[in-house]
Amino acid sequence: MKRNIKMEIAYDGSAYNGWQRQENTSKTIQGILEAALASVLNEQVHLHGSGRTDAGVHARAQVANFHTRNGLEAPQILHETNRWLPEDIRILHMAETSEKFHARYSAVSKQYSYSLWTGDVPIVFGRKYVYETGRPLDIQAMEEAGQLLVGEHDFRSFCSEPSREKSSVRRIDTIRIEQNGHKITMLYEGNGFLYHMVRILTGTLIEIGMGKRAASSIPAVLRAERRAEAGFTAPPQGLCLEKVFY
Amino acid sequence: MKRNIKMEIAYDGSAYNGWQRQENTSKTIQGILEAALASVLNEQVHLHGSGRTDAGVHARAQVANFHTRNGLEAPQILHETNRWLPEDIRILHMAETSEKFHARYSAVSKQYSYSLWTGDVPIVFGRKYVYETGRPLDIQAMEEAGQLLVGEHDFRSFCSEPSREKSSVRRIDTIRIEQNGHKITMLYEGNGFLYHMVRILTGTLIEIGMGKRAASSIPAVLRAERRAEAGFTAPPQGLCLEKVFY
Repeated sequence: MKRNIKMEIAYDGSAYNGWQRQENTSKTIQGILEAALASVLNEQVHLHGSGRTDAGVHARAQVANFHTRNGLEAPQILHETNRWLPEDIRILHMAETSEKFHARYSAVSKQYSYSLWTGDVPIVFGRKYVYETGRPLDIQAMEEAGQLLVGEHDFRSFCSEPSREKSSVRRIDTIRIEQNGHKITMLYEGNGFLYHMVRILTGTLIEIGMGKRAASSIPAVLRAERRAEAGFTAPPQGLCLEKVFY
Repeated sequence: MKRNIKMEIAYDGSAYNGWQRQENTSKTIQGILEAALASVLNEQVHLHGSGRTDAGVHARAQVANFHTRNGLEAPQILHETNRWLPEDIRILHMAETSEKFHARYSAVSKQYSYSLWTGDVPIVFGRKYVYETGRPLDIQAMEEAGQLLVGEHDFRSFCSEPSREKSSVRRIDTIRIEQNGHKITMLYEGNGFLYHMVRILTGTLIEIGMGKRAASSIPAVLRAERRAEAGFTAPPQGLCLEKVFY
């Protein structure tokens, strides 16, 4: 009888080609986790992640599950697997779960953060986890635009490859913007995000914060259903998958 | 007429051989700053730092001063010098100051922080800025010991090379220990710290937090005036020079 094991993983994506296993590189989070688990469990392991993260994107609590015939207790698998992993990938939690649990299909919603540094002097600590705008932003305008994005919409304008998915309709539950000195954290929560969606939402909000476009232009951008109408794709290093809700 | 310029510098010390310029390596903070300033000012520059930091130690606001005949305004020197500097060293502030100011001799007191991670799962984010104990510590015992270290004492037992200095008497004004989940931050403030002193104080407090020695042993360790009586030298990466007071 195979057991179904659920785990939470933190990773610093700086050095990796994203979550998803690829044929032509060993530098993916999924590939490295599967190899480490296989060493510990003495069998091939297929991980199901809650979703992909792009190259350079981080996760504070990615969720994945896998099946195993090995009888080792989950805490021991966690402990031994962490010894095999590089220091920028860590399993935080591992537990047996119901047979039906699937990290991707069971997910109800997700939270992402995107971090900005607006100081004119570049940041020294944490510089690998922020995008530097080099100048202050109009937070109020960004919040106003954020409110216009909340709700169920066709987010085709905010997606790099809409053909990847059956539908580009998604629901954003909240967009919060927190400011702490020169550091700005944008928190997105919703039932699912299209390819590059959080980064394009962020790029669009940054352009609004810089006064390059008006907050009130958002409904027209949504209606256009054309990628070209939205803002730039903010770079990966500011993005972090914070939490997956089940 | 030479002007006296004061500046505040942040650096991630991970990649460097400490603050002080050395003949046999170009990887010192002082050496790199002097070279960058010389390029901008077209003259040799001698920096006076508030004090040395060891290899691998960080600074959130080191202070230094230098004299120059160049008439460039301080904000412009800052801006142009930052363009020459590697991304892990940044000048945060620069301003002309009185002729008599000396970053080291004018300093009244300093604040250092030392960061610990006590979780059994190693930390992913910020791992280069903490020392990992791998297990929880008795914070109350550490605070009790900290109180016995506050005040003016001969800290010879907490110093690697007492012969470097005329006197090993120093005054510690406060030792505060802040806990936030698995992260512990120890804050030290005092009128001066001997070579390795903060790291040896930290190593000793960690041993107390682990139950390897009693908080009440501190007065005897101070009286012994022998390095061997104190705890281990905590590694450099957890240490950060936070602030210099004038």
